[in-house]
Amino acid sequence: MLNIRQAILNDVPLLYSLIQEMANYEQLPVLISKQTLEKDGFRAQAKFRALIADFDGEPAGYAFFFDSYSTFQGRGLFLEDLFVRPRFRKNKVGLALLSRVAAIAEQEHCFGVMLHVLDWNEIAIQFYKKLDATFLDDWKTVCLIGPAVKQLIASGKPGV
Amino acid sequence: MLNIRQAILNDVPLLYSLIQEMANYEQLPVLISKQTLEKDGFRAQAKFRALIADFDGEPAGYAFFFDSYSTFQGRGLFLEDLFVRPRFRKNKVGLALLSRVAAIAEQEHCFGVMLHVLDWNEIAIQFYKKLDATFLDDWKTVCLIGPAVKQLIASGKPGV
Repeated sequence: MLNIRQAILNDVPLLYSLIQEMANYEQLPVLISKQTLEKDGFRAQAKFRALIADFDGEPAGYAFFFDSYSTFQGRGLFLEDLFVRPRFRKNKVGLALLSRVAAIAEQEHCFGVMLHVLDWNEIAIQFYKKLDATFLDDWKTVCLIGPAVKQLIASGKPGV
Repeated sequence: MLNIRQAILNDVPLLYSLIQEMANYEQLPVLISKQTLEKDGFRAQAKFRALIADFDGEPAGYAFFFDSYSTFQGRGLFLEDLFVRPRFRKNKVGLALLSRVAAIAEQEHCFGVMLHVLDWNEIAIQFYKKLDATFLDDWKTVCLIGPAVKQLIASGKPGV
């Protein structure tokens, strides 16, 4: 049986493992620590929320999201991760997690749920297409990070 | 002279006008109201923050951003809008606004600043390229909205 529940402080080690598994799948390095997840998600003014899916009592996947905002449409949710452990796939775990995120978006009067998907992740792309998701193909995602941020800060200092 | 300041409640009418001007430029409709901006940005648990740039005492542009989160890197800022009124361009207003956002990201121990840019907006693309921004060209942006959200919620109800 499938059960979707909100992640609590005690789930941090599990959440961290699931994030690692997700990162392996996406071939990306995880730089975050359990301590940071604890501090940012499970104290006052949490920066994110997470849902855990249990299948027959075993953790099968997670959804990880935060509040976003559009100047065109107001409040939204941004789904950072949606991941189902390979052995639990074909059980509609991902759909159940996403359905719960959508229900939260509606409850909180959000315009919808935004997310990113990697262009080689054909399974994910087909999953969202089947759900009538809108692909914003004319939007490019850009990141200012590391030295780019330092340079930018320096450019704003007097005399530069 | 250029001055960057945090937007306050009294700036809502100005912020709303600037958002309209930005939307005209991006050829997108604005569905948000002044009341919603007030409620979501200038009460407890604000969902966004905004900076206003004044040039010789006149409002010249704005930056609009909210807290984001990456499971790989932790806290971030998401820059929703960066806009400079046409007659104030070539005065480094956009750079000054973005530099302040970057400084806030650093103060708040964020990994960086994320944003979207429209693929036809060559001026914006060149602006970010000059700043050594990273273009995440393998990320597709997807949105679940309207009927897609309703269907998704229905699919999670028992018996469906």
